[in-house]
Amino acid sequence: MPAANKKKVSKIETEKPKEIAKRIRSMSEDIVKQIKKNTDPTFITKQRGRGNVEFDEKKGIIELGEKETTRSFLNIAHTKKFLQTMLVTAKAYDYLNQNKTASIREIYYELKHNIKGTKENTFDGQHESDSCLVDLEHAVDTIREKLNVHANPKGTLYGDITLMDRKHNNDKFNCLKLGRGGWSIMSRMEPNEIEIKQVNAKYVLVIETSAMYERLIEEDFAKKNKAILIGVGGQAARGARRLIHRLHTEKNLPVFAFTDGDPYGWYIYSVIKQGSMALAAHSTFLACPDAQYIGMTMEDIKTYGLEAVTEKMKPGDIKRAKEMMQYEWFQNKPWQEELKNAIHQKLRIEQQALANKSLEFVAKEYLPKKIKNKEFLP
Amino acid sequence: MPAANKKKVSKIETEKPKEIAKRIRSMSEDIVKQIKKNTDPTFITKQRGRGNVEFDEKKGIIELGEKETTRSFLNIAHTKKFLQTMLVTAKAYDYLNQNKTASIREIYYELKHNIKGTKENTFDGQHESDSCLVDLEHAVDTIREKLNVHANPKGTLYGDITLMDRKHNNDKFNCLKLGRGGWSIMSRMEPNEIEIKQVNAKYVLVIETSAMYERLIEEDFAKKNKAILIGVGGQAARGARRLIHRLHTEKNLPVFAFTDGDPYGWYIYSVIKQGSMALAAHSTFLACPDAQYIGMTMEDIKTYGLEAVTEKMKPGDIKRAKEMMQYEWFQNKPWQEELKNAIHQKLRIEQQALANKSLEFVAKEYLPKKIKNKEFLP
Repeated sequence: MPAANKKKVSKIETEKPKEIAKRIRSMSEDIVKQIKKNTDPTFITKQRGRGNVEFDEKKGIIELGEKETTRSFLNIAHTKKFLQTMLVTAKAYDYLNQNKTASIREIYYELKHNIKGTKENTFDGQHESDSCLVDLEHAVDTIREKLNVHANPKGTLYGDITLMDRKHNNDKFNCLKLGRGGWSIMSRMEPNEIEIKQVNAKYVLVIETSAMYERLIEEDFAKKNKAILIGVGGQAARGARRLIHRLHTEKNLPVFAFTDGDPYGWYIYSVIKQGSMALAAHSTFLACPDAQYIGMTMEDIKTYGLEAVTEKMKPGDIKRAKEMMQYEWFQNKPWQEELKNAIHQKLRIEQQALANKSLEFVAKEYLPKKIKNKEFLP
Repeated sequence: MPAANKKKVSKIETEKPKEIAKRIRSMSEDIVKQIKKNTDPTFITKQRGRGNVEFDEKKGIIELGEKETTRSFLNIAHTKKFLQTMLVTAKAYDYLNQNKTASIREIYYELKHNIKGTKENTFDGQHESDSCLVDLEHAVDTIREKLNVHANPKGTLYGDITLMDRKHNNDKFNCLKLGRGGWSIMSRMEPNEIEIKQVNAKYVLVIETSAMYERLIEEDFAKKNKAILIGVGGQAARGARRLIHRLHTEKNLPVFAFTDGDPYGWYIYSVIKQGSMALAAHSTFLACPDAQYIGMTMEDIKTYGLEAVTEKMKPGDIKRAKEMMQYEWFQNKPWQEELKNAIHQKLRIEQQALANKSLEFVAKEYLPKKIKNKEFLP
């Protein structure tokens, strides 16, 4: 593929651990200086929450705005949080220098202890350390994976793609040659650790359920259609989202999402495509604004005569679908019609309902036809 | 390893698909004969539910008793179920002959349709087809995996073990050479499909959380300790249980379970070891009665000074722990004391709490020491 064709890779993605450690050090030295000058120590991070989240229509992603906020030690409402953030900061700095990585649950447990001479704990729940970590990410302008911190792994990879783990004996393996199980996607999928050596595929198919992922492997779909299959097993974990993002930006592969036709499935798609409000600052590294939705759709029910295998939407589903109709990123005709249609009929349709036609129908007819005719929702 | 050392492998495990198909055919021909004779068609399956579940103390597994039950077509309470079971039976027979496999959700969707000329559906929910499948398993004395039907896949495998997928180009791969992700365990781990070619390990470590599985890989625990790591990600799926069972019976490897010290974690262990009440008929193929519990324990809290990182048990946890104290398979002194102790202190302790000592503590000290000193709960 010509280099000119490649999508822009963000600077933050290629930054070395040393450079980030340097920024942490400089921020911390500033704080020490302030203390020595007997002034109130402060640091600057970004405002979070809906007030500072915006949908960038041009880029097609949810982003954090420019609003900043100052955390100060002498503001009584901030004191504990300030202390906590310093603990998290020191720990992340250690991880970077020691070349260690930790999960967000581990960083919480590593730092939780009684403050000497008091009955006070440093942290009373993981939500506290998680929130400090987000402050730190913004303060030093990076993502947690670059701070050697990560969430839980989830998701599986199958297809003609060769990865190399630079931190594990430079292991090289092709994910079409691991039997029918595939590779278990790690929580951290950063380019300096996991290199995509080679891909022989036309597109990436992201699949909601593990059972559908297995079905497509059993039908030899990946090989016959030159597809990379990623089973996300519900809402996609960060590692899986990074991998999808990287396959799209580094290898220029189109991404198609295949989920249940219901609010949960639509939301999985929406997070893969535009990012999420909670992680608005990281959409540039995680989102895939060119992704397209292949199904399930309300039209599929008619087209393929699936009336007998739909499920009723529960009141909660309908409420959620109505909410989603209001989201900026669903403000286009095809999605407005899709959601209105589902709400009106009170119907949802699962991907496995296609088994009603035959087990191989999804692999032999449904997906190839949709891809050939470009029958996607935007 | 000398062959004499190998555990007994059940006959059902090695049975060929043809033989099972033959039994299905013979059962079905019986039913046709009965219909032709104008007698009420019936078939025999096993009684389920607590009334026919027993704990075999000698074998150390939960088993289904000998009580049988007859399903008859002309019993109005059985008619629909009889019809449903025939549909499932015919489908399983097709799968076996066509060499196809399906998930339990797919079999439900494949068979769901309106009964011509009525407003009646063949199935109104997956629980109905699931229940028929269990009837069929018992009627022809096999397990669903042998009927080419399976639940969802879940779980990951890491370590010096080479598998071969006989149904996928005879792919051979070593699970120590797949970077730090490991292999994604399939839903069906039957010997005629996935062969364990070679294992170079001293034991199998079953790990509750994916994050702890990742931690141990990061610490190079498998290589340094010659361990096979299986991350089950909560309650173990059938595929993972079959693999654990097979590593124990075929390769004679000891199995150690490493879970959170709370009712959910204890139950994960108990299902791996003794089997479950819901799948009592299948304990012979799934359970691992020699498995031992390595932690977390209430004693760990004292021994390692983890008081600051325990969590409070919720009322539901305490209720569950009290129930578990009554289970026959927890009627031994060490477990009674463990449960009593937890209930008394109202405490639970997570595996990741060990990070409070240091990230590498679990790999360098906690696990090796317990294994060396055989500090297990039975």
